[in-house]
Amino acid sequence: MEQSLKIFNTLSHQKEVFEPIAAPHVGLYVCGPTVYGDPHLGHARPAITFDLLFRYLSHLGYKVRYVRNITDVGHLENDGDEGEDKIAKKARLDKLEPMEVVQYYTDRYHHFMEMLNVKSPSIEPRASGHIIEQLAVIEDIVKKGYGYENNGSVYFDVERYNKEHKYGILSGRVLEDLYSTTRDLDGQSEKKNSFDFALWKKASPSHIMRWPSKYSDGYPGWHMECTAMSTKYLGDQFDIHGGGMDLMFPHHECEIAQSTIANGHGPSRYWMHNNMITINGQKMGKSLGNFITLEEFFTGSHKTLQQAYSPMTIRFFILQAHYRSTVDFSNEALQAAEKGLQRLMEGMLQLDKLKAGNTSDFNIHEFRQKCYDALNDDLNSPILIAHLFEGIKTINSIAAGKMSLTSEDLAEFSTLMHLFVEEILGLTDEKKANNNSETLDGLMQLILDIRQEAKNNKDWNTSDKIRNELGNLGIIVKDGKEGATWEIK
Amino acid sequence: MEQSLKIFNTLSHQKEVFEPIAAPHVGLYVCGPTVYGDPHLGHARPAITFDLLFRYLSHLGYKVRYVRNITDVGHLENDGDEGEDKIAKKARLDKLEPMEVVQYYTDRYHHFMEMLNVKSPSIEPRASGHIIEQLAVIEDIVKKGYGYENNGSVYFDVERYNKEHKYGILSGRVLEDLYSTTRDLDGQSEKKNSFDFALWKKASPSHIMRWPSKYSDGYPGWHMECTAMSTKYLGDQFDIHGGGMDLMFPHHECEIAQSTIANGHGPSRYWMHNNMITINGQKMGKSLGNFITLEEFFTGSHKTLQQAYSPMTIRFFILQAHYRSTVDFSNEALQAAEKGLQRLMEGMLQLDKLKAGNTSDFNIHEFRQKCYDALNDDLNSPILIAHLFEGIKTINSIAAGKMSLTSEDLAEFSTLMHLFVEEILGLTDEKKANNNSETLDGLMQLILDIRQEAKNNKDWNTSDKIRNELGNLGIIVKDGKEGATWEIK
Repeated sequence: MEQSLKIFNTLSHQKEVFEPIAAPHVGLYVCGPTVYGDPHLGHARPAITFDLLFRYLSHLGYKVRYVRNITDVGHLENDGDEGEDKIAKKARLDKLEPMEVVQYYTDRYHHFMEMLNVKSPSIEPRASGHIIEQLAVIEDIVKKGYGYENNGSVYFDVERYNKEHKYGILSGRVLEDLYSTTRDLDGQSEKKNSFDFALWKKASPSHIMRWPSKYSDGYPGWHMECTAMSTKYLGDQFDIHGGGMDLMFPHHECEIAQSTIANGHGPSRYWMHNNMITINGQKMGKSLGNFITLEEFFTGSHKTLQQAYSPMTIRFFILQAHYRSTVDFSNEALQAAEKGLQRLMEGMLQLDKLKAGNTSDFNIHEFRQKCYDALNDDLNSPILIAHLFEGIKTINSIAAGKMSLTSEDLAEFSTLMHLFVEEILGLTDEKKANNNSETLDGLMQLILDIRQEAKNNKDWNTSDKIRNELGNLGIIVKDGKEGATWEIK
Repeated sequence: MEQSLKIFNTLSHQKEVFEPIAAPHVGLYVCGPTVYGDPHLGHARPAITFDLLFRYLSHLGYKVRYVRNITDVGHLENDGDEGEDKIAKKARLDKLEPMEVVQYYTDRYHHFMEMLNVKSPSIEPRASGHIIEQLAVIEDIVKKGYGYENNGSVYFDVERYNKEHKYGILSGRVLEDLYSTTRDLDGQSEKKNSFDFALWKKASPSHIMRWPSKYSDGYPGWHMECTAMSTKYLGDQFDIHGGGMDLMFPHHECEIAQSTIANGHGPSRYWMHNNMITINGQKMGKSLGNFITLEEFFTGSHKTLQQAYSPMTIRFFILQAHYRSTVDFSNEALQAAEKGLQRLMEGMLQLDKLKAGNTSDFNIHEFRQKCYDALNDDLNSPILIAHLFEGIKTINSIAAGKMSLTSEDLAEFSTLMHLFVEEILGLTDEKKANNNSETLDGLMQLILDIRQEAKNNKDWNTSDKIRNELGNLGIIVKDGKEGATWEIK
């Protein structure tokens, strides 16, 4: 590879040069949504972050197998081992079969991801579709002495694991601290220790989502699906595991423990975590009840929103921050993103009209490497965007005749700008699609002005021509006290 | 229900009044695609046929749970029990993991169904996600003596089944005939009789899609998924099972046999089958190599096509025939559908502009019932469309001042037309979306004419005004020898 990508590995707490296990193949696993509610801004961030990674790795020439799961069973309330399954609860409240809930929200998720120009992953496995694979891992862990059954449920023995391995390696949590913070919760009497986590849960008689197993009719623990499905589709060790920072503990920590026992090592060599979106300083999330759905953003229908924000504005807003920084939601920040995106897209339109000159006043080679360097530095999209705005300044200077580029340099410059803006950042020009109707309004205003003037001048020839032609186009003009209005039949 | 729907039940070979098992709930299961190739016209027909049924039943007030599966494992070449799995073969040829093939073509299928305005089913289960459920049915059938194992594979004993039950009840095939027509095929030595069908197949060492079972590491037979998944999501007897006529034998016949042994009766009370789309009199299908993909239709990129046909033209083309008739593909037929749809949509636009009169010359009540009667008669969409064209004639007569409707009748008429055209037939006005750019062309032509005339008349005031305003709108006009051209910046 010509470019050398460094990524911040949560495991080592430092930036490392990315070296795939079996280049040019790259295995990437990202934790996808639990499909029991409408996708919100908190879902957009990991999707866009790892879409950028997927796009950049593919551009660099890697053959990426990108697996992003759909959690449709086993994710209990409060992310714990007690309480109701999130999807079963939603199904009960809506009087639907759980899989109807899953289908509805999976479709919605896909719809909104498409609007955000997030590419589909290579494989999108569902937890409920991989029960056999999960049971195989559970049995293996039990056989090796790190899982124990109690009353039909199976739990992972964290204390035993921690004797030989380090539980908390990713998040930096220390087991000693967990004794004191989690000891006194209720309803965990089946566990040896409160921090043990479920591998398999026995289903209560009323629980719909259940499968037979040697332990009980039940369902898998939330953490197990990622271990089973990443192993199935990417092998027992793959390159990159990604997800939101809120999943680091306990979810990813549990995945590492499960994989370490089942496969002899953690699932992936690199762990990447995107930071949270906050609203008034608090994480935005469904369980916290302070989330704004993507549909509300796109339509402006939430009380907190001063206006609608388009999908590309949301995408740009997220990419303007480095994925490991928090992003605080505010109308001001989104309005600034909207303006910035508009400036970028206007520059891109301008770019396509530039004429080449005889000399070059801009170092394309340097520009090119600066853009790559930004992404190579742990996907630093805000720095890349800053460079692209330099590019836009150059475009405007060339258009104003203050700078010039040779035709060769102009071609290279144009290729680079389109590559980084469209192909890698995945930004598209929404104005192009909406433009027509604005232009239509403007042209009609012009025509009605000319018609009015012709009438004033008793130029019946022109005013008749206009009336007839508009009629042919199916446009009806109505003259009123406030002037003429028009509509298309 | 106010309306009484009759549907042609393939089981009884006659039209029957539709009576759900537990009204207002209706369970509907339709065989979906095997996702190993791009969706083609042959996929559009069952999707649109059962979309019409789904829409109409929902309109009538039924709460429909519509299950349409994704076949992602077990469907072997030539629809038989030998040969390679269709998806595994495609994966081998493309050097992909089978689930990457599944994901890609499932996404494509969803994309094109959305373009055709086909609603998502309530649940879209995947065969590979229901191995446990399938194995449970297989074990049950073996235990009851109708399945036998040989060399790790399990087959259904059709001869034994036929002693007490009637194999061929749906298709009218008689077992005696099958002896002679299927006896001499090769490679079926594991079976007692060549017409026995696989419930479970032992995987060859190189076969990727495999799951453990008491019989072997293998995968389910193609027919088993529908039995297991329809039972899981709709119960052991549900209302309507649909699919293409080409699935009647052996697929649906095998489903009935499996259900009869496992559940004591066939899966559904009503069976509905859409007829085929033919091209030069032959069924259009991927296995026959004579198919035209939906993308090719929408872009006009297949050598057989004289032009592109829009999604709504395809939908209208299919709905113009009754679902139990064959439809023969031809450019002429599609062009006629395109014209018909245009006339219908122009009428609908006209409808919204009609003014009410003092009297009514049109019997709305009768019109309403005729429309319902058409659908109640086994979803007779061509008759419904004929009535809707009568409606369009009425609209044109009212617009021309030759007929009138009171405001009450006009409101009812408008509601009915929108209901049947848009909500039930699912036809949308594509012109509305495309209109803008055509109108834009027309307006610009008008403006450039006026500008030329102003120049001829030395009316610099007007020609300057036009140049400035177009500039403000970002429209660049270039004067050339052939006249002026324009483009939007």
